[in-house]
Amino acid sequence: MGELTLSVRRLRAWLRLLRLVRGLENQLRDFLRVKYDTTLPRFDVAAALYRHDGPMKMSDLSKKLLVSNGNATSVVDRLEKEGKARRVALKEDKRVVLAELTEEGRDWFKEIAKSHEMQVNELFSGLSDDELNQLRQLIRIVETTNNIAKEG
Amino acid sequence: MGELTLSVRRLRAWLRLLRLVRGLENQLRDFLRVKYDTTLPRFDVAAALYRHDGPMKMSDLSKKLLVSNGNATSVVDRLEKEGKARRVALKEDKRVVLAELTEEGRDWFKEIAKSHEMQVNELFSGLSDDELNQLRQLIRIVETTNNIAKEG
Repeated sequence: MGELTLSVRRLRAWLRLLRLVRGLENQLRDFLRVKYDTTLPRFDVAAALYRHDGPMKMSDLSKKLLVSNGNATSVVDRLEKEGKARRVALKEDKRVVLAELTEEGRDWFKEIAKSHEMQVNELFSGLSDDELNQLRQLIRIVETTNNIAKEG
Repeated sequence: MGELTLSVRRLRAWLRLLRLVRGLENQLRDFLRVKYDTTLPRFDVAAALYRHDGPMKMSDLSKKLLVSNGNATSVVDRLEKEGKARRVALKEDKRVVLAELTEEGRDWFKEIAKSHEMQVNELFSGLSDDELNQLRQLIRIVETTNNIAKEG
């Protein structure tokens, strides 16, 4: 391994990281589908709406999730159809549409979020406090190189 | 931060890791689209076919990429239409269909792969040799917990 250039080592680390994250995402996807008959995008959108203080602009939602506006829209459509989200107009400008969770949506999200946290805790049960600090530090370095904000 | 439970810290690390990886994927996606008019799935499929020794079963391709068979099929369809891949039947059993890159596809992939490696090298330019070792070690721990093979 000493013979590999730093550039090849970085590429391998990235491919392995990508593979790991996709694998873990697939496990969480299966978990949400089997246990709650829902999807990762719906869960992600609900999480963003739940944590946001008041109704949220669609464009902010997209940025937060790093997905296209079209994707965020279709997921909110779906949550609306399920009674978990609703759209509201901005008071100052009726053309601006915002989204928020309904009471039912908030309750639904809280239940799944607890269960999801337990699931993630299992996936990462091999990492100690110190190792989590290490991971956080490594993530921070790559975020900084690429101007990725810690939280949108 | 000392007050957070390990479970909450693991969840936060996961969300941050997920956000980072999606952000980097988006940067690579834009790079492939703008510079080579192609997509991440096409590049991933080409990479798997390129590295495989001889024609590859579609089911092995899906496993390798952690995507559904349907997704792998539609990406190979696309590469075939572009003259970069072709399907061949297994000699021992004509019903089994395999995929491989054409010569044109191999040349195309080699060029993009070099450029992609340089791009990844920039994304991870903040990580030293030691930090790459740390990252690899952390990835290995989580892989082991979740029975994710290092390479398929």
